[in-house]
Amino acid sequence: MRHTISVLVENEFGVLARVAGLFSGRGFNIESLSVAETLDPSVSRITLVTRGDDQVLEQIEKQLNKLINVIRVTDFADTEHVERELVLVKVAVNEKTRGELMSIVDIFRAKIIDVASDSCIVEITGTEDKVGKFVELLKPLGLLEIVRTGKVAMFRGARLFTADGKDRERAA
Amino acid sequence: MRHTISVLVENEFGVLARVAGLFSGRGFNIESLSVAETLDPSVSRITLVTRGDDQVLEQIEKQLNKLINVIRVTDFADTEHVERELVLVKVAVNEKTRGELMSIVDIFRAKIIDVASDSCIVEITGTEDKVGKFVELLKPLGLLEIVRTGKVAMFRGARLFTADGKDRERAA
Repeated sequence: MRHTISVLVENEFGVLARVAGLFSGRGFNIESLSVAETLDPSVSRITLVTRGDDQVLEQIEKQLNKLINVIRVTDFADTEHVERELVLVKVAVNEKTRGELMSIVDIFRAKIIDVASDSCIVEITGTEDKVGKFVELLKPLGLLEIVRTGKVAMFRGARLFTADGKDRERAA
Repeated sequence: MRHTISVLVENEFGVLARVAGLFSGRGFNIESLSVAETLDPSVSRITLVTRGDDQVLEQIEKQLNKLINVIRVTDFADTEHVERELVLVKVAVNEKTRGELMSIVDIFRAKIIDVASDSCIVEITGTEDKVGKFVELLKPLGLLEIVRTGKVAMFRGARLFTADGKDRERAA
């Protein structure tokens, strides 16, 4: 099964390498990963997507929790959460296909962020499903290059996932 | 100086840990990093932001190029390129502050993607500068949680950065 996992870590040298190493050491490929600072610059948040045996993954999560510099770990499987990713696509265009590109961009509420004589860079955010359909529709125009951030995730509603452990129903 | 670096790697176990380890081994902190598949699922693209001595970074780039499973490396410093990141922010709201939140969201063309009785999740994409200002404006409302993808980058215009080495002016 596919899992989206978030890990809060102290922003120190080598933490990312250790976290990534734990997965690869167990034969788990990381499909995507992103890491950046949180509101507290001493704490970074890693979001990663991996696929594999649920029991082995549970062991990995336990080992993650024991790693020095790891503050907290959560698995978004079976929870109410939102997932989003950002994708930049460079697409070939010419006078004939420019209109078609504009329609697809409009329908998906994407954004053209760079225009050259025979190519454009388009920015889109959304769920994997939406982004996948968008890229599929652009294929006939000629996909030149793509870069994806990988998914980030957050619990819906009042539930938090923060370093101070307030991932409970927040007091009003 | 701050650098945004992209690395194309074979999608194999352990590559990410080795790449991240090269930076931390040299005392370079990774401010943000994202990795996901490209158009060719056997190739992943890592984008990372780091800061430090330019000469040491040049050495790291040379070492990266020698790493097994690393296909190509580029540094976006001093090039014409676009940079974007995606950020999800959970903000406290009540009847009094909801209007203010809506105005800020409108001005920045952000998007509300989850609504609860006393909080909202807002999605924004943009440059670091834009996202930073947005988060600053939301602060008085009460920031509960943030997750950022880290930056992705792409050369403007016709120049490509792909595994087959076509990062030259593309033939028309």
